[in-house]
Amino acid sequence: MYQKHRQKLFSLFDDNQKGAVFIQGAEISYRFNTDYEYPFRQESNFWYLTGVNEPECALILDLKNEDYHLFIPKRDASYAVWHGYVNSREWYMDTYKPDHLHYINDILTVLNEIGPDKVYCLNEEQAEFLEGLNKKLETDTESLEDALTYCRVLKTEGELDLMREAARVNNLAHLTVMRQIRPGMMEYELKGIFTKVQHENGLLQDAYNGIFAGGKNSAILHYVENNSRVNDGDMFLLDAGHECKGYASDITRTYPANGKFTKAQASVYQAVLDALNTVIEMVEPGVKMEDLHMHAARIMMEGLKSEGLITGSMDDIMENNIFALFFPHGLGHFLGLDTHDVGGYPKGVERIDRPGIQFLRARRELQPGMVITVEPGIYFVPALLEPALKDEKQSEFLIASRLRELFDFGGIRIEDDIVVTDDGYENLTNVPKEISDIERTIGR
Amino acid sequence: MYQKHRQKLFSLFDDNQKGAVFIQGAEISYRFNTDYEYPFRQESNFWYLTGVNEPECALILDLKNEDYHLFIPKRDASYAVWHGYVNSREWYMDTYKPDHLHYINDILTVLNEIGPDKVYCLNEEQAEFLEGLNKKLETDTESLEDALTYCRVLKTEGELDLMREAARVNNLAHLTVMRQIRPGMMEYELKGIFTKVQHENGLLQDAYNGIFAGGKNSAILHYVENNSRVNDGDMFLLDAGHECKGYASDITRTYPANGKFTKAQASVYQAVLDALNTVIEMVEPGVKMEDLHMHAARIMMEGLKSEGLITGSMDDIMENNIFALFFPHGLGHFLGLDTHDVGGYPKGVERIDRPGIQFLRARRELQPGMVITVEPGIYFVPALLEPALKDEKQSEFLIASRLRELFDFGGIRIEDDIVVTDDGYENLTNVPKEISDIERTIGR
Repeated sequence: MYQKHRQKLFSLFDDNQKGAVFIQGAEISYRFNTDYEYPFRQESNFWYLTGVNEPECALILDLKNEDYHLFIPKRDASYAVWHGYVNSREWYMDTYKPDHLHYINDILTVLNEIGPDKVYCLNEEQAEFLEGLNKKLETDTESLEDALTYCRVLKTEGELDLMREAARVNNLAHLTVMRQIRPGMMEYELKGIFTKVQHENGLLQDAYNGIFAGGKNSAILHYVENNSRVNDGDMFLLDAGHECKGYASDITRTYPANGKFTKAQASVYQAVLDALNTVIEMVEPGVKMEDLHMHAARIMMEGLKSEGLITGSMDDIMENNIFALFFPHGLGHFLGLDTHDVGGYPKGVERIDRPGIQFLRARRELQPGMVITVEPGIYFVPALLEPALKDEKQSEFLIASRLRELFDFGGIRIEDDIVVTDDGYENLTNVPKEISDIERTIGR
Repeated sequence: MYQKHRQKLFSLFDDNQKGAVFIQGAEISYRFNTDYEYPFRQESNFWYLTGVNEPECALILDLKNEDYHLFIPKRDASYAVWHGYVNSREWYMDTYKPDHLHYINDILTVLNEIGPDKVYCLNEEQAEFLEGLNKKLETDTESLEDALTYCRVLKTEGELDLMREAARVNNLAHLTVMRQIRPGMMEYELKGIFTKVQHENGLLQDAYNGIFAGGKNSAILHYVENNSRVNDGDMFLLDAGHECKGYASDITRTYPANGKFTKAQASVYQAVLDALNTVIEMVEPGVKMEDLHMHAARIMMEGLKSEGLITGSMDDIMENNIFALFFPHGLGHFLGLDTHDVGGYPKGVERIDRPGIQFLRARRELQPGMVITVEPGIYFVPALLEPALKDEKQSEFLIASRLRELFDFGGIRIEDDIVVTDDGYENLTNVPKEISDIERTIGR
């Protein structure tokens, strides 16, 4: 798989050039001035090209003859005491299959042998490191990141298999929480149940700091405290996932802690679910993310209108950005080695300066091999609604009395992970989402 | 509690001086160039003085009148959308009880009002930040860290209560794993069971990256892969703990996965346990950590000698540092807001340059209020034993044939958390450790 990734990158550079690519792998990171080590996690571009998830490595790709040089740290005997063993050079050759294996302090020697006319780096820091070794090296920090983004945005079959495994475990973790939730549990207990399923299946690294939010906490987009009680009558929103060999899963479900939707919960929920299901059916090559976003927004506004929470013509509601008051984030983002994966905005494409879509993380036509999240949501956020209710124009569309009743409602988000295929899509997510399926699952 | 901490710090400075203390709280940290946020965790000194576990705050202590100025970030409405709410100034005053509350961009104004003749900072970076605000400020980066270390090393009753709670949950998590372990489980499954108990009890932040090590992995001091199977006949070593409001617990147990010690396992285990129990009984004010270390080492060497793994007179064994081949780390360390807490080496005390004790993290006389770990261990590390078996002097003490049989044995470590009291100690750890208790617990 990683050899294919290198080939993909090589194919983007001119055939008869004499350049080289240099990337430094990640170091161990520590919590400020302590020896608390964060679990090691390789930098995504380095992982993509090498499969090496160890600290203190580096790589050089010789673009002329397409040779792959891997650099590893030289460990002494005391390292073996604290880390158990020092892998042999043969182990590194067999495991990672570089064309040439070197110790990390041989970077300059190898670069001098290759004699590139230009070295492509990911950032200024790594370029300055090389220039510190040899002032005559010409570096370029413009092209490499774009080239890698171009490669990473279209997943290979090997990558999709890892994402399917991350999704399989995440489906199971979500299902387990849905089955075990009871009113009165603390949000952190539900995190405990969720994380145990991930750990049991060998996925120790979270893809992001998960959100376990009961009641009105579910309207907080970045809620990570996870320390409140989930009460009878509350909705519970779970947005979390772990990585499989670096590849993320990212699923959200929202459901009533007591297993039974109230009428109000069901109607808002159904509006979000309709948006999700409709938009997923639209996924195919050539469709634009921003069009999906606006389509989902419109469906949700139709739901709120038929529920009597907003009023006016649908065209006016959309034109006046009323949807942004209830759906203030983007419809979705690319997913891969990073949860908010690279490639959302190709060069020359700017974010749209309009409420409700300015936070959309991906704006481009879908192509086969892309993996996206689709995550519509409706939230009742007093900080957004209060000013709107006082605004002369926006307040015309809002049924104040009904909305004020929902200030403690929280929010609903439903999120699936979708692979774009040649003729449509593959949905990696299979956690119950229809109201009847959820009600059959909770407590069983 | 936090007010007491500030009083303790004030008491270390001269009464009639005109200085001030400045500390910047921690920011959110991200994984290299991504938006992956590590769970926020306050810098320990800032947490110690304020109780504030939120990003982007700062404090100034006016040493002249002992006023406490807390600085908080100014949040706009968009913050409320992503984070749910912006706490009011009243909330900050009620919750953290500063004498004066300011926004973070008022640091210069407040400093100018106070007009200190010197500002004490934790490090150069924060001193340079102040000098950037006002070149005339005189800063000192020497005294503050020492003063805070002096304060933090002797715990107050409030701190001890939080450490008791962290230990209570950790005892339960260890006990749960001991009860549920079965041969054939993966190390990460056991991590899943352990972490669930911590989460269920609201302890979401690990105190360090835990070690879940079966078989020979248990000899790897920094083993964090946690991805091997624990086989029938293997010992299993669990070294982990979570934080309660910043305060760490750190407990280790080692036991047979199948619930029954073999003769060899029992004899090595008993040597480590004898060292642990004996040394804990010695804990009282005035005792030196390095003396406890050497005492534990001697007891363990007596065990190995009576088991026929080493030979020679005990004095010669100790003098020739044979213990360092089996016990290559320190007996323990201070425990508190950091797992390897501050204060191990007061000014003027250097590490001892001798094998087997050079890694001892604390070298000083014990005093009431200190919290230490006591964690003797015996490991069979080929990377240490192979060279020793070839060494003319050391090999005289080693029974090569017996030791070679144990190259896959792994290691045994047993670790309790101990509070030094006026007349002895309080043991915060109550996970079974006697052989008979362990055998009665596993699988029950």
